[in-house]
Amino acid sequence: MVEINGERLIQSLREVAKFGAFKSGVHRPTYSEQDMKARRWLMDKMRVAGLQASMDGVGNVIGKSNRPGSALLVGSHSESQNQAGWLDGILGVMYGLELAQSIEEQNLDLAVDVGAWADEECHYLQFLGSRSYCGDLREEEIDAACNKDSGEPLRDALKRVGLLDRPRQKIDTARYVGYLEAHIEQGEYMDSQQLAIGIVTSIVGLWQYRISFEGQQDHAGATRMAIRRDAGAALVRLATRIEERFKEVAAERSVWTIGRIILEPGAPSIIPGGAEMLFQFRDENLDQLNLFERELIALVGQADREGPCGCKLHTVDLALPKKMSAGMQQDLEDAAKVHTPDKHVRMPSGAAHDAQIFAQVLPAAMLFVPSIGGVSHHYTEDTKEEDIIAGCRVFADAAERSIRRASLTAKAARPAS
Amino acid sequence: MVEINGERLIQSLREVAKFGAFKSGVHRPTYSEQDMKARRWLMDKMRVAGLQASMDGVGNVIGKSNRPGSALLVGSHSESQNQAGWLDGILGVMYGLELAQSIEEQNLDLAVDVGAWADEECHYLQFLGSRSYCGDLREEEIDAACNKDSGEPLRDALKRVGLLDRPRQKIDTARYVGYLEAHIEQGEYMDSQQLAIGIVTSIVGLWQYRISFEGQQDHAGATRMAIRRDAGAALVRLATRIEERFKEVAAERSVWTIGRIILEPGAPSIIPGGAEMLFQFRDENLDQLNLFERELIALVGQADREGPCGCKLHTVDLALPKKMSAGMQQDLEDAAKVHTPDKHVRMPSGAAHDAQIFAQVLPAAMLFVPSIGGVSHHYTEDTKEEDIIAGCRVFADAAERSIRRASLTAKAARPAS
Repeated sequence: MVEINGERLIQSLREVAKFGAFKSGVHRPTYSEQDMKARRWLMDKMRVAGLQASMDGVGNVIGKSNRPGSALLVGSHSESQNQAGWLDGILGVMYGLELAQSIEEQNLDLAVDVGAWADEECHYLQFLGSRSYCGDLREEEIDAACNKDSGEPLRDALKRVGLLDRPRQKIDTARYVGYLEAHIEQGEYMDSQQLAIGIVTSIVGLWQYRISFEGQQDHAGATRMAIRRDAGAALVRLATRIEERFKEVAAERSVWTIGRIILEPGAPSIIPGGAEMLFQFRDENLDQLNLFERELIALVGQADREGPCGCKLHTVDLALPKKMSAGMQQDLEDAAKVHTPDKHVRMPSGAAHDAQIFAQVLPAAMLFVPSIGGVSHHYTEDTKEEDIIAGCRVFADAAERSIRRASLTAKAARPAS
Repeated sequence: MVEINGERLIQSLREVAKFGAFKSGVHRPTYSEQDMKARRWLMDKMRVAGLQASMDGVGNVIGKSNRPGSALLVGSHSESQNQAGWLDGILGVMYGLELAQSIEEQNLDLAVDVGAWADEECHYLQFLGSRSYCGDLREEEIDAACNKDSGEPLRDALKRVGLLDRPRQKIDTARYVGYLEAHIEQGEYMDSQQLAIGIVTSIVGLWQYRISFEGQQDHAGATRMAIRRDAGAALVRLATRIEERFKEVAAERSVWTIGRIILEPGAPSIIPGGAEMLFQFRDENLDQLNLFERELIALVGQADREGPCGCKLHTVDLALPKKMSAGMQQDLEDAAKVHTPDKHVRMPSGAAHDAQIFAQVLPAAMLFVPSIGGVSHHYTEDTKEEDIIAGCRVFADAAERSIRRASLTAKAARPAS
């Protein structure tokens, strides 16, 4: 059985955290100088671990094993959110690297390929790397994407970092028994329950909307209340009704969020003539998502009919829930029973991950380690070293189980020779 | 009795609207090239009308009458909001100019001084001109003021247009019997009631606040509803309670407005960790303003105690209601009975005006003419020519009545010679 080196893993994580170090975390946005340095450092590390490493036309760093047999693909992302944590994304890549290094040193018959998928964090285009690798990306999307902070077009960024003319690699699904990704939980559930391992049952569906209001811009002193068409007041009314109604119909782990509100023109003495909010909800169950959407459509329709402001619902995205592989979940559970007995749980992932892209073309699974206090997308994000190392042990053991199980199945399916 | 020339008035208004013409309105922000051209044009016109014209160190254009006796000060502002209407402000200045020109032509014993007060519209500092003229402006306020669009410091702007080293004129209150200002209504009330003249009873008090919320920024997918501290949701809850409570306790013409809402960081998948709204209310009655403030303090306190987010109230401004002079209101009503019988009304001004600054040092009064559809601060703002001319007739007649009434009072008070 493969044995990972916990001390080396922590050391590698500390080393890569130097690229874009920011307070106790990292600031390593996609295609920044520090991000590109980290990607090249990663290729060097992959080569030492016996992998054939390359960077493709969107910055995916892929290390391929020369070992025979069906391979397992593992990985995550290496860029960070702005001024964010030292583990988000890169943890899953470093688990893969540590696993490959251990296999190499112990000369095991396990083929594990490792990937760092570009821009999962959506500085330009969410899941750019994994979607490109899975053949689920259109050229027009690349044309249209711009940096969320600087406005730099994605193609300009790719040219700037010397990637524009490189080929974009595509996955050979026949090579793989599945895709395995480790990640910090980014919530407080495991930490509050003192759990070490989360076995992801599914990645929740995420339905996103823009809700716009059309009123009448007027002078906030000279316009009587009775004749106002205040788009901001209409927004507040609808937001309150959504909150009340969603509470009534929610499932246990449903979540919903208004992340942005804009009033136009946004001046103290002007009645807002326009308003807009970004609204999203998530659930692992498609029926629940459909129920939420029906309620939302009804509330928006009611607001529009009642007036005095027009109200329109614009769909931004309807990402379906992605079930994780039952077999690979079992492999994770069997491994957790060995390394972290009674400290594992099956749970949905409320956050989006590259695994949901790979789940479209391969059996896919995910493992969570706890986030202290649930802090995420902030430089104070952290996980205890013992939890990081325990997570990697379960990850490596489960990876081996998935590969061996697949080989057995393949042998059983082969006619007797 | 003074008789104004309606045709000339309309012609002058059309002429000055060429400075910064924008669609059917004007774009003439304070200290822009077009604004300064308009101020110099105005000085020329004042001289033709027999006034001694000058521009002071903040751009106030002041035309003083050489005629003997106590004088009436009249005026308004000549700059415009961005891309705004052709009458807002300048109408009151041109009424004054037409009155002075008529007095000059008819050689009447009426002393009327005309002022165009700089930056009532607050491109840099609201009421800059009238506050400077009334001695109610501190040097530190000038130091601190910057252009709301460009960020240009006020002192740099004054230097740019050659005003920085000019003296700032101060009012000689002993010279004046009062201050009279005409303005468009900027609301729909008079238009909807087919009224020609609004006699302002008071300029409402305007109390402004910033309300801030402190929550916990978290991942919108990974953080369960039960443990969220969503500052945006807290803001929506309080906004709803304010709306409900204020409706219950409002007076007939009370108004309240949330003009701006900001959620931090304002991203679709991040639970807002901070939120802020700008809130204001207006009423002509100080008791009502105090009642609103007590309710607001109670609601904010309740929100803060209930949690889960902290909630704080920050006072931005508490401008007291300003009563207009009873005698001058009567002069306006007597004049309106002659020129626009049964088409006049007494009403508070929901909007702020330079008259509220002058009301601190002189008896002050205001006259409104209707705004078509109540449109204001937009280039489609307009008033019928017949209403503009009728307004000027009432303005001129009332001005004469106020001056003659003051002379009579003065004579009566003088010991018999």
